[in-house]
Amino acid sequence: MLNATILISCPDKKGITATVTNFVYNNNGNILHSDQHTDDEAKAFFMRIVWDMKGFTIKREMIGKKFSAIAGNFEMKWELYFSDQVPRVAVFVSKQTHCLYDLFLRLKSGQFRCEMPVVVSNHPYAEHIAREFGAKYYEFPITAKNKPAQEKKQLNILENERIDLIILARYHQILTRGFVDRYRMKIINIHHSFLPAFAGSDPYSRAFKKGVKIIGATSHYVTEKLDEGPIIEQDTARISHRDAVKDLIRSGEDLEKMVLARAVRWHLERKILVYDNKTVIFD
Amino acid sequence: MLNATILISCPDKKGITATVTNFVYNNNGNILHSDQHTDDEAKAFFMRIVWDMKGFTIKREMIGKKFSAIAGNFEMKWELYFSDQVPRVAVFVSKQTHCLYDLFLRLKSGQFRCEMPVVVSNHPYAEHIAREFGAKYYEFPITAKNKPAQEKKQLNILENERIDLIILARYHQILTRGFVDRYRMKIINIHHSFLPAFAGSDPYSRAFKKGVKIIGATSHYVTEKLDEGPIIEQDTARISHRDAVKDLIRSGEDLEKMVLARAVRWHLERKILVYDNKTVIFD
Amino acid sequence: MLNATILISCPDKKGITATVTNFVYNNNGNILHSDQHTDDEAKAFFMRIVWDMKGFTIKREMIGKKFSAIAGNFEMKWELYFSDQVPRVAVFVSKQTHCLYDLFLRLKSGQFRCEMPVVVSNHPYAEHIAREFGAKYYEFPITAKNKPAQEKKQLNILENERIDLIILARYHQILTRGFVDRYRMKIINIHHSFLPAFAGSDPYSRAFKKGVKIIGATSHYVTEKLDEGPIIEQDTARISHRDAVKDLIRSGEDLEKMVLARAVRWHLERKILVYDNKTVIFD
Amino acid sequence: MLNATILISCPDKKGITATVTNFVYNNNGNILHSDQHTDDEAKAFFMRIVWDMKGFTIKREMIGKKFSAIAGNFEMKWELYFSDQVPRVAVFVSKQTHCLYDLFLRLKSGQFRCEMPVVVSNHPYAEHIAREFGAKYYEFPITAKNKPAQEKKQLNILENERIDLIILARYHQILTRGFVDRYRMKIINIHHSFLPAFAGSDPYSRAFKKGVKIIGATSHYVTEKLDEGPIIEQDTARISHRDAVKDLIRSGEDLEKMVLARAVRWHLERKILVYDNKTVIFD
Repeated sequence: MLNATILISCPDKKGITATVTNFVYNNNGNILHSDQHTDDEAKAFFMRIVWDMKGFTIKREMIGKKFSAIAGNFEMKWELYFSDQVPRVAVFVSKQTHCLYDLFLRLKSGQFRCEMPVVVSNHPYAEHIAREFGAKYYEFPITAKNKPAQEKKQLNILENERIDLIILARYHQILTRGFVDRYRMKIINIHHSFLPAFAGSDPYSRAFKKGVKIIGATSHYVTEKLDEGPIIEQDTARISHRDAVKDLIRSGEDLEKMVLARAVRWHLERKILVYDNKTVIFD
Repeated sequence: MLNATILISCPDKKGITATVTNFVYNNNGNILHSDQHTDDEAKAFFMRIVWDMKGFTIKREMIGKKFSAIAGNFEMKWELYFSDQVPRVAVFVSKQTHCLYDLFLRLKSGQFRCEMPVVVSNHPYAEHIAREFGAKYYEFPITAKNKPAQEKKQLNILENERIDLIILARYHQILTRGFVDRYRMKIINIHHSFLPAFAGSDPYSRAFKKGVKIIGATSHYVTEKLDEGPIIEQDTARISHRDAVKDLIRSGEDLEKMVLARAVRWHLERKILVYDNKTVIFD
Repeated sequence: MLNATILISCPDKKGITATVTNFVYNNNGNILHSDQHTDDEAKAFFMRIVWDMKGFTIKREMIGKKFSAIAGNFEMKWELYFSDQVPRVAVFVSKQTHCLYDLFLRLKSGQFRCEMPVVVSNHPYAEHIAREFGAKYYEFPITAKNKPAQEKKQLNILENERIDLIILARYHQILTRGFVDRYRMKIINIHHSFLPAFAGSDPYSRAFKKGVKIIGATSHYVTEKLDEGPIIEQDTARISHRDAVKDLIRSGEDLEKMVLARAVRWHLERKILVYDNKTVIFD
Repeated sequence: MLNATILISCPDKKGITATVTNFVYNNNGNILHSDQHTDDEAKAFFMRIVWDMKGFTIKREMIGKKFSAIAGNFEMKWELYFSDQVPRVAVFVSKQTHCLYDLFLRLKSGQFRCEMPVVVSNHPYAEHIAREFGAKYYEFPITAKNKPAQEKKQLNILENERIDLIILARYHQILTRGFVDRYRMKIINIHHSFLPAFAGSDPYSRAFKKGVKIIGATSHYVTEKLDEGPIIEQDTARISHRDAVKDLIRSGEDLEKMVLARAVRWHLERKILVYDNKTVIFD
């Protein structure tokens, strides 16, 4: 079955839902999902509509063009996806490999509709994992000095491999502004704290020192500001005085895996809309 | 602002969303919320649509009649509500009063759009609470023998008071089938376990004896089968071997209050659809 | 039954457990609870021991003196409590009254072993609640200018009422250093965020603006640094893009009540040890 | 560092803590951890004590004998472990392999102090996983008829491999009473529901049909009664009407992995005491 999905954001106005719904219905599309959200404070409207392409009277190539007419009337930003476009994902990783392993296992078990042909790292440790799951492994050691040159090579690979989404699965390097700009809202990071608390390095040690009673993990889109991009998902777990830093790490790794996996799945299923450095998740 | 809400359930079929949306739009209604859900297994479709009545071209009294025409085409079950209809709620309670207190405090703080003019009990203990919050208190001691007669009196009061919703806030009496039939899907119970585990009496003691590591609370609509009606909301809390039955009770009371309050709020906001002994919650 | 409780913290060293245990046992005390914790990083040892005073061969008045000898050998800081000493609690509150109400209801239902004879506020709104539960109400409007004078009066009242613990149940005034010093580790605050995130004012609005997917509440002892004292308890709840600020507030109020109540109960049961701006909770 | 651990359960009586503590202290043992619990209802006492063997004046081989004298006075059941005894674990698995994979990855990352040399299955699907992590794979297809014979062969292997603990990591066969008796409280199962709800087969489908709002997972020791052995750990996750059975399965798999891992870790760290078909977890 071939589906089409449109994601829409625009200023709130009368008639948007009906207009979009009619666009699909009047062209003989069977609506499978339709979600909308209004942010009353921001006076903003968001919509996700999915329909079965079987019997749809507008040809696939023409849908965008036809929809543009509507979109213009409502000042919409919109994206159109088809279910046979399988995103290609590159995973970036440093020394910790639990998230990488977890992503591959979920891919294999059918949780993600994508391909993961590329792993990039500044270390050699994850090569056997990439190999085990049939992905190419590119090692780029990073120093302050060589970073621009290495990123250039990385970008070349990503382009050659036609990568649609980059996952930073505990990749402990800060990407340059130029890199981030090339993949705007297409880089998902997992940070091992409940942001905005403990942004930056070594959050578990700092959480331990602070004496918090809960730890967390946060997945977010990467922007030029470190750990400040739009939050996609978060979760927390209880700890106690009995837990040492290593216990926080162990417990936190479970959170990281789950939180990252949910964010990736929602992105791949085109369920995320970004506005105002925040996300709407049509789960 | 006067809003109208329609809740719809029907067999899944092409065009429902568009038809309902157009019904509102073409009559100049501004859609405020529109949620839909399809149960693929049951081939069932559910929808909730809310619109601003300002400028709506069908008169309030005629909306139901006009909508019937559409509804017939899709074999819809539907309910229509207006936001100026403030539901009247009766709370039933036995000896434990924490839920009753909690409901009144939430009402007072604006969490519930309803009136709570009536408290019914088989005991005298909650009278001062009802009085404090300006509600009438009716005490009906119940025995196996007098139950039918007492329920009859209760039903008279409920009718005189034009009660729309009954909340069993730890009311430890089983209502007869006849009573339940008079308020179908209009009686919400809080049960102090995560159903279907520990249905029936004394769930905390049984949970303790069983050695479970989590306890829970469940709010559900009351049907003729004890603790088996459609579940509206559940939540759980961790316990450990250090917790005695009294600790389970203390911790569980917090769950009961929150779980019941959410269920009541969703009901009052017309966000719940029931089918197949399950609920769809358009939160 | 009369119990004695000793709370101990000291540098970690061989023989502490045995020495303390023997102090109780050799004087014919029946140990009811004994918990210990070692912070390997800080090389610190913590212990809580509770025993039945029935038949204990050291007279109550002499226990402290006798125990001092042991304590000296291990450089212990220690506190001794008897179960017939019922703490007297003052609750400070501003405009929001949900925590105050909750504390009184829990007191009444037997969750707290204390008295709550005093409510202090910078507003008049909670007077009827204090009255309902038989507490005195003192209103002290606070301005930048009159704060020192008003605090002086407050301290007088607290002293006259022999107050052992102060609960800031959404009291929106910063206490001066002098005030805090008089009640060191005897002032418990509830902050409506998961600290260290969103310290300071208006955390729910800031959480909304930030787009977090979880909100939280934190209870902590008050020190001279705002929202930075030792954390006693925290909890979190999920939110989504559908939640407006008012929904965060509603959901957060449930967290605040539960988190504050746990902290207060643990304090009253002498289960909290503070070191290094952190807490050990012997629950 | 070599540690010794004693786990004790006995009727509650004066002097147990002091006696056990003195046994260690008077023989020059440095107590590293000491936890105790009293079940007031069952009048039962539980203790776990861990000490550094360095300088301990009783020889390792004689500790049990010497401790027996004490144990007799208090009718203790007790177990003695040394930290250099590394348990050998066999994992049983059927078609789902997520728990098996997870166990191996946690072993590799240092979360479990054990060896996992053996995987047993009634299917061929997990062989490559066992091989990847260097474990032997034994396939025993099971039918109603061949079960006794196959179990006999399994028991032979377990004995030859000197297996101390069996993990049923989604092994969908019921072990016979004879098998269970050979490994009493040494078989840990993961059940994919919050027991006692949905014991038996196909819990996710039944949870979906029932319309519950939370799902769960339970790890427990296996006894002759299906899904009724002592519960070690449980956890739950929220679901909604939007989740189909496959979503429950996906979400549940995360719970299963975490809940099973915690149970296994606690068992390996000798933190679990069983009594009255319940567990005390000294975490």
